[in-house]
Amino acid sequence: MRTSKYLLSTLKETPNDAEIVSHQLMLRAGMIRKLASGLYTWLPTGLRVLRKVENIIREEMNKAGAVETLMPVVQPSELWQETGRWDKFGPELLRIADRHDRPFVLGPTHEEVITDMVRNEVKSYKQLPLSLYQIQTKFRDEVRPRFGVMRSREFIMKDAYSFHIDRESLEATYQDMHTAYCNIFNRMGLDFRPVLADSGAIGGSGSQEFHVLAESGEDLIAFSTDSDYAANIEKAEALAPTTPRAEPTQAMTLVDTPDAKTIAQLVEQFDLPIEQTIKTLYVKASEHIEAPIIALLLRGDHELNEVKAENLPEVAAPLTFATEEEIRELIGAGPGSLGPVGLKLPFITDHAVAVMSDFAAGANIDDKHYFGINWGRDVELGQVADLRNVVEGDPSPCGQGTLLLKRGIEVGHIFQLGTNYSESMKASVLGPDGKSVTMEMGCYGIGCTRVVAASIEQNHDQNGIIWPNAIAPFEVVIVPMNMHKSERVQEAAEKLYADLQAQGIDVLFDDRKERPGVMLSDMELIGIPHMVIIGDRSMDEGNFEYKNRRSGEKTPVPMSDVVAHLQAQLAQ
Amino acid sequence: MRTSKYLLSTLKETPNDAEIVSHQLMLRAGMIRKLASGLYTWLPTGLRVLRKVENIIREEMNKAGAVETLMPVVQPSELWQETGRWDKFGPELLRIADRHDRPFVLGPTHEEVITDMVRNEVKSYKQLPLSLYQIQTKFRDEVRPRFGVMRSREFIMKDAYSFHIDRESLEATYQDMHTAYCNIFNRMGLDFRPVLADSGAIGGSGSQEFHVLAESGEDLIAFSTDSDYAANIEKAEALAPTTPRAEPTQAMTLVDTPDAKTIAQLVEQFDLPIEQTIKTLYVKASEHIEAPIIALLLRGDHELNEVKAENLPEVAAPLTFATEEEIRELIGAGPGSLGPVGLKLPFITDHAVAVMSDFAAGANIDDKHYFGINWGRDVELGQVADLRNVVEGDPSPCGQGTLLLKRGIEVGHIFQLGTNYSESMKASVLGPDGKSVTMEMGCYGIGCTRVVAASIEQNHDQNGIIWPNAIAPFEVVIVPMNMHKSERVQEAAEKLYADLQAQGIDVLFDDRKERPGVMLSDMELIGIPHMVIIGDRSMDEGNFEYKNRRSGEKTPVPMSDVVAHLQAQLAQ
Repeated sequence: MRTSKYLLSTLKETPNDAEIVSHQLMLRAGMIRKLASGLYTWLPTGLRVLRKVENIIREEMNKAGAVETLMPVVQPSELWQETGRWDKFGPELLRIADRHDRPFVLGPTHEEVITDMVRNEVKSYKQLPLSLYQIQTKFRDEVRPRFGVMRSREFIMKDAYSFHIDRESLEATYQDMHTAYCNIFNRMGLDFRPVLADSGAIGGSGSQEFHVLAESGEDLIAFSTDSDYAANIEKAEALAPTTPRAEPTQAMTLVDTPDAKTIAQLVEQFDLPIEQTIKTLYVKASEHIEAPIIALLLRGDHELNEVKAENLPEVAAPLTFATEEEIRELIGAGPGSLGPVGLKLPFITDHAVAVMSDFAAGANIDDKHYFGINWGRDVELGQVADLRNVVEGDPSPCGQGTLLLKRGIEVGHIFQLGTNYSESMKASVLGPDGKSVTMEMGCYGIGCTRVVAASIEQNHDQNGIIWPNAIAPFEVVIVPMNMHKSERVQEAAEKLYADLQAQGIDVLFDDRKERPGVMLSDMELIGIPHMVIIGDRSMDEGNFEYKNRRSGEKTPVPMSDVVAHLQAQLAQ
Repeated sequence: MRTSKYLLSTLKETPNDAEIVSHQLMLRAGMIRKLASGLYTWLPTGLRVLRKVENIIREEMNKAGAVETLMPVVQPSELWQETGRWDKFGPELLRIADRHDRPFVLGPTHEEVITDMVRNEVKSYKQLPLSLYQIQTKFRDEVRPRFGVMRSREFIMKDAYSFHIDRESLEATYQDMHTAYCNIFNRMGLDFRPVLADSGAIGGSGSQEFHVLAESGEDLIAFSTDSDYAANIEKAEALAPTTPRAEPTQAMTLVDTPDAKTIAQLVEQFDLPIEQTIKTLYVKASEHIEAPIIALLLRGDHELNEVKAENLPEVAAPLTFATEEEIRELIGAGPGSLGPVGLKLPFITDHAVAVMSDFAAGANIDDKHYFGINWGRDVELGQVADLRNVVEGDPSPCGQGTLLLKRGIEVGHIFQLGTNYSESMKASVLGPDGKSVTMEMGCYGIGCTRVVAASIEQNHDQNGIIWPNAIAPFEVVIVPMNMHKSERVQEAAEKLYADLQAQGIDVLFDDRKERPGVMLSDMELIGIPHMVIIGDRSMDEGNFEYKNRRSGEKTPVPMSDVVAHLQAQLAQ
């Protein structure tokens, strides 16, 4: 490709509305342009990267035995009604009506459509297992689209679905997909980790997310210092302490605390260790218990894990915090003075709280706390559960080492759905004994457009993007210096361009009449991994100059060796 | 690919609701499935063809210097308001609202989006000419989707757009695109013709359609017997007769014709040659003339060409026929008795009518006609124009030969838009003299999904589809006979499968435990061009059997020669 026939569209300035570095660099490097909130046009440079990402995914899906299909973007509402998601899905599901006023959706995912197709086409266990995938445009009407293509409304996903006669077959394919995902992200040159994920409302037994590690990530991942264990903080188990509860040493006393509305104020004003305080949060209770709200008790320095709380049968889903009015009506006191002592409502205690002694908590009387509370003596310890987010230094649930926390960007998710969809949609086959069997299902997603942004979060410097070879928009760029003044430079550049193309190398030839500085900084911004600079001065010595985008190193390379030199670089 | 890991989904029966052969065969061969009216899922076999079609288009677009981009499916209404198409476009334009009730459309085409992008990114004539294209999902809410993917609501198009500093540059790119389109359809092995097309409401000077010739085509194409001339019948000019009008031989007489409401009845009851009759059609007049309706006069055996009529400045667009009430109110007589004699309203006369003598027409009195009418003597001949569809035998407008008519399926359209969009959207660049110049634009479409169906209309027999090599879902299929009973057959089939894959041949291995007859008829239905049948009987003689899908010929080929034999077939 010659830049003179191309749409380069680099920007000098960082656009104001781009918050994270990948969004800034994708705009500056001329990869994307915003059409409307959450809607982006992929300019040529961006699309070249996206297509390479898609092709790697396609190749590895094919290797894993999945077969490609393509389902419509527009889906009839009837299928979503069958699974109940027409009602359950929030406003992210964009509902539309056609000219005859029939209801449709813009597909945010395709479980319904694929299950409908497979129940019609697959009749016998002999046709199983079957894995199908597509690379298709999806739409999710995010309330606040942000970070460019990282969280856009229209995006491209690879979504695969597998169908099985039994659990064992599902688990085998799930493992194959795990391997394929590792191959995919390795081939893209990304620093990633598969992490345990919550299976949440969809149910199913197994679920792993694939995260690209980056400081801008929206997710927190817990890693073991000593093993392969990694889990989304939503899922990472906080083990119950193994040290026993200390014996009481203090009497329980009622203390006036009019200026202590928060744990921080209480700790400061009364010089308490924060580990000796507890906080009491009220959430809506589920229909399983006879109380409108239920209290969750956490140590003062711990954070509620909302996913763990929501997964408790006693807690209503989606998790909803009680309002101050509801609390005041039922307790007689407001937030800031709540606690377990004398409480008539049910509560669930975090493991870490259950081993505390001589602790402080609200007295359920405005402006008063109890100090020196002890379990058993002052209040009965009821149900104990894992309610909190893990923190760095917690023992790893795998039994080896302690936990570290890092930020990650979710780029993939693999999921054992089980019979969640196949049951409601009656997707069954005849088994070996001639009886009807509901198919087991798995689903496996990769956000293709998001992968592009995540790669940049992990591969950039102050000058721009640094592409891994496999997903670079071009592998090599030729930058001739003042070509339009030097016939020798022009001839050498044209010849090298032809030679590299003949070797099947994906090469950009910057044939613009621009100042060398502009061309070099554009190419660093775009992040092409390998650059050959052709100028009169180095040619006097029989050389071209090779520059590696990642190391920044410049090396003179004899003109006759440059193709081989580049091939060696690309083979690395 | 092994059929055991694949979703073959062939059907024995022809589905009831499929009217044309491509729709029937795409369903039967397991290429597509209907999800809802005008919405189709592409099953693996269909998608393989579609991807090959897309790749051929992509390669030829790249060769023609066009650069690939990708624009969103969902487009903001504001851009459509800028060009006025928000109001002008009918209900085929699906208008939707997002969660914040902001109006969007599902893009049926992307002129607005690309023009917006280019006006933002391109500032100087130095960046021109620029050609951009995408292969993207489109949506057109057809009132009556039909013929499967031939006229579906969601479909995939390649749409290219070119931008230029002047007309000459546009014309040069238009010619390059013409060449690229010929290369594309030639590579696909299709019998196609570029034909002149009407530029209609969009204006612009040049426009050609690319038609695949097939009896089921919705369009009629006029060809010259002696030259390359070809035009959509909408556009094909009916030349004015060169023979002069004959002198009058009859007096004009008023005849009672109570039972002649149609030309056919008039001709039959009064034994008139149909070439001596004229019919009078009334349509709404445009604001350019001072009459609510205007008459169009055609020879009794000729058909009105609605596109030609609509393009006349005196006729309102869109073409609207007057109602019987409107006619009766203004003329005093009804359809069946209309004609030019004594008429107070304006009329336009077709060239063929202008040379008639002694002809019959309605008298503008119910149940009466005039016979023996002559121009000048009985009624003044006013404006004469080309109003009719050409018929076979008409002289070709190119001056060579006469016209033949054939049916075609429009699969592509290239168009010199001029400044239609760039002017309303203020898409301009700085010219060489530093002054702002509105860009000239071209647009170039191919219906990727429709091409697949059109290919089948042209390539099938009673047993199923016959794919050209370049777009076949698989190039070769291996059909082993009773493999599960013969180790020798199985080994030979596995070895051939591996050998063909190693040669980069796209091969399907039918490893199902099916009866040979079922396997053979499935593969003929799917239309794989080259088949190798492996059986004990032919192996006894050291042969495999090669069967060519198109010729139906079976040839024994020595086992050791079969790879070379297939390579030779594929190279043809």
